[in-house]
Amino acid sequence: MAGKKTGGLAEVIAGQTAISTVGKEGKGLTYRGYSIDDLAQFGSFEETAYLLIYGKLPSQTELNQYKQKLSGLRKLPDGLRTILEQLSGSTHPMDILRTGISAFSAFEPEALDRDQYDIADRLLASCASILLYWHHYHTSGTRIDTETDSESIAGHFLELLHGRKPSGLHEKALDVSLILYAEHEFNASTFAARVTASTLSDFYSAITTGIGTLRGPLHGGANEAAMELIEAFEGPNEAENGILQMLAQKKLIMGFGHRVYSVSDPRSDIIKKWSRTLSEAAGEMKLYDISERIEQIMLREKKLFANLDFYSASAYRLLGIPTPLFTPIFVISRTSGWAAHIIEQRAGNRLIRPNADYSGPDLKSWPAIRSRS
Amino acid sequence: MAGKKTGGLAEVIAGQTAISTVGKEGKGLTYRGYSIDDLAQFGSFEETAYLLIYGKLPSQTELNQYKQKLSGLRKLPDGLRTILEQLSGSTHPMDILRTGISAFSAFEPEALDRDQYDIADRLLASCASILLYWHHYHTSGTRIDTETDSESIAGHFLELLHGRKPSGLHEKALDVSLILYAEHEFNASTFAARVTASTLSDFYSAITTGIGTLRGPLHGGANEAAMELIEAFEGPNEAENGILQMLAQKKLIMGFGHRVYSVSDPRSDIIKKWSRTLSEAAGEMKLYDISERIEQIMLREKKLFANLDFYSASAYRLLGIPTPLFTPIFVISRTSGWAAHIIEQRAGNRLIRPNADYSGPDLKSWPAIRSRS
Repeated sequence: MAGKKTGGLAEVIAGQTAISTVGKEGKGLTYRGYSIDDLAQFGSFEETAYLLIYGKLPSQTELNQYKQKLSGLRKLPDGLRTILEQLSGSTHPMDILRTGISAFSAFEPEALDRDQYDIADRLLASCASILLYWHHYHTSGTRIDTETDSESIAGHFLELLHGRKPSGLHEKALDVSLILYAEHEFNASTFAARVTASTLSDFYSAITTGIGTLRGPLHGGANEAAMELIEAFEGPNEAENGILQMLAQKKLIMGFGHRVYSVSDPRSDIIKKWSRTLSEAAGEMKLYDISERIEQIMLREKKLFANLDFYSASAYRLLGIPTPLFTPIFVISRTSGWAAHIIEQRAGNRLIRPNADYSGPDLKSWPAIRSRS
Repeated sequence: MAGKKTGGLAEVIAGQTAISTVGKEGKGLTYRGYSIDDLAQFGSFEETAYLLIYGKLPSQTELNQYKQKLSGLRKLPDGLRTILEQLSGSTHPMDILRTGISAFSAFEPEALDRDQYDIADRLLASCASILLYWHHYHTSGTRIDTETDSESIAGHFLELLHGRKPSGLHEKALDVSLILYAEHEFNASTFAARVTASTLSDFYSAITTGIGTLRGPLHGGANEAAMELIEAFEGPNEAENGILQMLAQKKLIMGFGHRVYSVSDPRSDIIKKWSRTLSEAAGEMKLYDISERIEQIMLREKKLFANLDFYSASAYRLLGIPTPLFTPIFVISRTSGWAAHIIEQRAGNRLIRPNADYSGPDLKSWPAIRSRS
């Protein structure tokens, strides 16, 4: 097991999980045994979060109670609002969520009377409040009320963002996107959150780790990069020429291929349909047509399939979401998966502490400071 | 390579590093080829941090410039002070550092004109400022000036804490402790920081991950637990009886043994001498005598050696440092090691994304909500 071979821990089994399967036979995705297709077609994000965190699909009564609980957790502590006001409008929105959730621990620390489930639900319910309180304060100077009577987290997000209730179609489209982004086994942010949890650190620390790790362009940032790519083109033909040029220059095209899926990303077909539906409803096919052409070229030229990030970009644009808020939406969704993994890690904990292959100098004698150059 | 065998990634090589060796032949520790004994005897923490971050021991001119640079970076942005004032005095001090450093990104983001070296130095220089500004504001209501003319980080910390210049002996003792805690290969917090860095996330995210991971009692929290243990006894004989009782009850005694060292922790002998020197200088041997007795019993009964955390506890107490600030001092020191690893990870980056061994249910069909119990 040489260091070079296991670079990035690719193919290394880092532990057990009962939460999801990714890429069985190169393509499937299940959350606790349920296929992502069923979850996206029949479920809601709240049902999905309940399934991930509490381990089973809720009954109708449990689901009603859960949605009511989440709806009641959208208000932010006063001190947290003051903190968000100190973070300028030019701050990276992922820095806002990382800092806001880290700060949350000062107001509502993990304790005997506030356990990991309570914190998971609180953060799921109020992530959008943190993000959009900061967003409106710094774009318009408004101190918004972060409580809405929307029944869903998707509806709450869109209502806070746009200041009005979303259409049923828009709410459902975002809800499906939240389902698709909720969980993905030992991806980098989830794995990092488990390493943090493995020292028996608190819940907020582990979620903060997840956010900071998701922030990178090789992980959560990919849907924003895909949007910038797609919007750079005037139409499908320009996109075709542009992509061929980029490929000739060996440039990286974001939103394609995957470390674990070898055949296809099962989430891509689902979000692609929603992107099409939203485009048709808006009578605005341009981004969709460009996206589809890029997808065809990448398959033809590089045999790479679109992953979830690629069609999420156009879907989010059609929901009126500014690009810098794309990765934060990923946080809102993935908080459910992170929470499930932190709970699972704690239940059978062993400190995660690998070894390294040393490639540095042999033992050296100490040089007097005057002899150093 | 079954999931169970690699639980916690023990013995798994997760990558290469040229920064340190831990436990070669069960006991040694080197930073970039220099033994921890030489570093602690001949070096300073600033030299050590320079060695870790910049890859070589500084010349006299470089060291002078480096210390001058660090001294100039102790002032906090106004907005950050306001944020620290919002976090109540009962907040866990590690939550303060995690939140404060996460928030720092909003004021001084990583950018072309502020690179990873600048941020590493800034955080090294101002960690103590964040911690002790918050500490004094919430214990006495004072908004302290976080700039001192102390030449060392150890001196800066002690001067901010006590409001007066420390003795040369105290400054040197803390300086040595900072050297000993600076770096330790792929320990959990460093490894987690590398996972965060591997998505190409920003520098603050990776350090924030390190802090959140260090916070756990199985990692950075151990010196605080050791202090509570030692202070619970009236004298060596009471300690002997108490420890024997705890061992009979299979209770965990913190500050002994190590995942990687099998023979001894090379840092323990060094800090033990300093603990003795500080005790003798204070004419107060009680904590040292109790510690030594506990060490003898653990060796005799469990064949476990004291690790760095054990004698650090009494040393810190003799420096007048309150127990809740022990782990934060670890942060100040380890920021140098984390920084070195983040820089190294970025230089030869590959996304760290392991696989999991699935232990959950097989594929299930979707149950209508009314059929669920």
